[in-house]
Amino acid sequence: MKKENNQQENNTSRTELGKLGEFGLIDAMTKDIKIQNKETKLGVGDDAAVIDIKEHSLITSDMLLEGIHFDLSYTPLTHLGYKAVSVNISDIAAMNGIPKQITVNLGLSNRFSVEAVNALYQGIYAACDDYNVDLIGGDTTSSAAGLVISITAIGEQAEDKIVKRSTAKESDIICVSGDLGGAFMGLNVLQREKEVFKSNPDMQPDIDKYSYVVERQLKPKARMDVVYELKELGILPTSMIDISDGLASELFHIATQSGLGVQIYEDKLPIATKTYETAVEFNIDPNTAALNGGEDYELLFTITQDDYEKIKNHMELTTIGFMHPKKKGMNFITKNNQVIEVKAQGWQHLQ
Amino acid sequence: MKKENNQQENNTSRTELGKLGEFGLIDAMTKDIKIQNKETKLGVGDDAAVIDIKEHSLITSDMLLEGIHFDLSYTPLTHLGYKAVSVNISDIAAMNGIPKQITVNLGLSNRFSVEAVNALYQGIYAACDDYNVDLIGGDTTSSAAGLVISITAIGEQAEDKIVKRSTAKESDIICVSGDLGGAFMGLNVLQREKEVFKSNPDMQPDIDKYSYVVERQLKPKARMDVVYELKELGILPTSMIDISDGLASELFHIATQSGLGVQIYEDKLPIATKTYETAVEFNIDPNTAALNGGEDYELLFTITQDDYEKIKNHMELTTIGFMHPKKKGMNFITKNNQVIEVKAQGWQHLQ
Repeated sequence: MKKENNQQENNTSRTELGKLGEFGLIDAMTKDIKIQNKETKLGVGDDAAVIDIKEHSLITSDMLLEGIHFDLSYTPLTHLGYKAVSVNISDIAAMNGIPKQITVNLGLSNRFSVEAVNALYQGIYAACDDYNVDLIGGDTTSSAAGLVISITAIGEQAEDKIVKRSTAKESDIICVSGDLGGAFMGLNVLQREKEVFKSNPDMQPDIDKYSYVVERQLKPKARMDVVYELKELGILPTSMIDISDGLASELFHIATQSGLGVQIYEDKLPIATKTYETAVEFNIDPNTAALNGGEDYELLFTITQDDYEKIKNHMELTTIGFMHPKKKGMNFITKNNQVIEVKAQGWQHLQ
Repeated sequence: MKKENNQQENNTSRTELGKLGEFGLIDAMTKDIKIQNKETKLGVGDDAAVIDIKEHSLITSDMLLEGIHFDLSYTPLTHLGYKAVSVNISDIAAMNGIPKQITVNLGLSNRFSVEAVNALYQGIYAACDDYNVDLIGGDTTSSAAGLVISITAIGEQAEDKIVKRSTAKESDIICVSGDLGGAFMGLNVLQREKEVFKSNPDMQPDIDKYSYVVERQLKPKARMDVVYELKELGILPTSMIDISDGLASELFHIATQSGLGVQIYEDKLPIATKTYETAVEFNIDPNTAALNGGEDYELLFTITQDDYEKIKNHMELTTIGFMHPKKKGMNFITKNNQVIEVKAQGWQHLQ
């Protein structure tokens, strides 16, 4: 855990935020912005940014609050900045959109130094580079309590290529990208190590063994690669959502909004070996981690049966079941062929 | 002060937020949304909203934090919801844009009841009606500390009608809408009454005498009426900004970004009688309230001399000076013809 924090702790210099003031801080953090997209006409520096999107625009907004969504005792600020962007881009990906711009509102208390804010922005800019989006504006203000990060992302897509939650059809095949449950197990590891550290500060726990699941928690990536790849494969999903609250909850959204039920299979759930092993060590059912753990930010989508051949051998995509009539229910079929009802437990935040 | 709070205190029923849960709360608060604009294609309910804006889009985002931007001991939640929308719409107005949509991110602690959140949304929806904008999405989450409101507004305008800060020209005439300093004096009244109430809770101060300035603080309106009226008058401002941090600070933004200086006149500053009287009572120079008080959300703009005839008798618009070369400086000419340098003191928040 200490290792994760090195970045902040090793800062030998500390510049107080008050030294720069609001405008000085914004200037310092935004002076090196390079606009990447031709759709961005005017970025930071006026009352509003100006963009020109020819197709339909996609708009999404998410907020992360200290003590609810993250714990700074084990979350490096650079990772946090990256994650705050990723969770918004993931919503654009879930509509089959191409992200173009973000705005970032920050609430900062005085315990943050200029160097700490800079670390946060480094993560934000790294994400902007990875997702090819422009930071075009926002608001930086004092916070009486903890750190607040509120981001709005803007994407683009042609009207007939936008994919909603409500348009799955009977017999469509249900697919997920990547693997599930890792972010939830990473959170369990980080919280346990925090308790160990609190009871004995001399302990320097080695979390290398858990690096896969910890990274899933601390630095999730929005699956824009899947959006681009589906396009290359000539597949337009019939419905899509990102997995932020756990697979079960997202299956409910697609099923309810499409007026259907689902049938998914235990032996199809994509769970990484590291996630499985960590779950067993923590006495958590790996299926529970996959179904009800949150923050994997993978994509859950449905495709027509005709498209099945195109993805059946894809390493990053797994078919886990199919849509069926609503009256047949929300079914999870175990390895022993038992039928269990999928329950949308949702995601419990830190508090 | 007690009067202002009646709305919250008189709620005899109290429903805990936990009873509805996140999805239940969002459903309850958004079920009656009526989409007003043809540019809104898909609102609340999917991973992202879908909009179709033909001209350029204007994007702005502002965040209000409890204890920094507002004090709930004297701010009715309905007014707060209205104001949170207004400050964002004001930024769209400042670009000469027409607002179309907003997203609202809320961080709520458990001390808020469903009824309180409902009051906040009533204010948000009242503003949506007044400004003709659609609430298309956002995020509702728990907050470990106080209330957090982060709003993004989206507007529309043709490329050649968008007005920036940086495009004022030498000899352009400087205009402001409405009157200045009122919101700052309203804040002073509310803070004084709070202290009185704290030292003697039996006191029920009558703030009717200050209702004008208190309303300027609690329920500012974005000056979309001015945007529409300038269009009718055939005036395209050469530069524009909204007055959120005080006239002096905004004059600096226009002057600096346009590479010019300004000359403004004390006897031209629009200060309402009520504001003037309250300032005198509080031993505050009314000019200071107008120049350095914040949150009036009036528009500051420049026009060509050719357009002067069109507005010179306008009740709601005041010409206060003109732009001149940068080397002539930032001049405030007093009634005694003294030249004082305008200083951008900026706006000090509650904390």
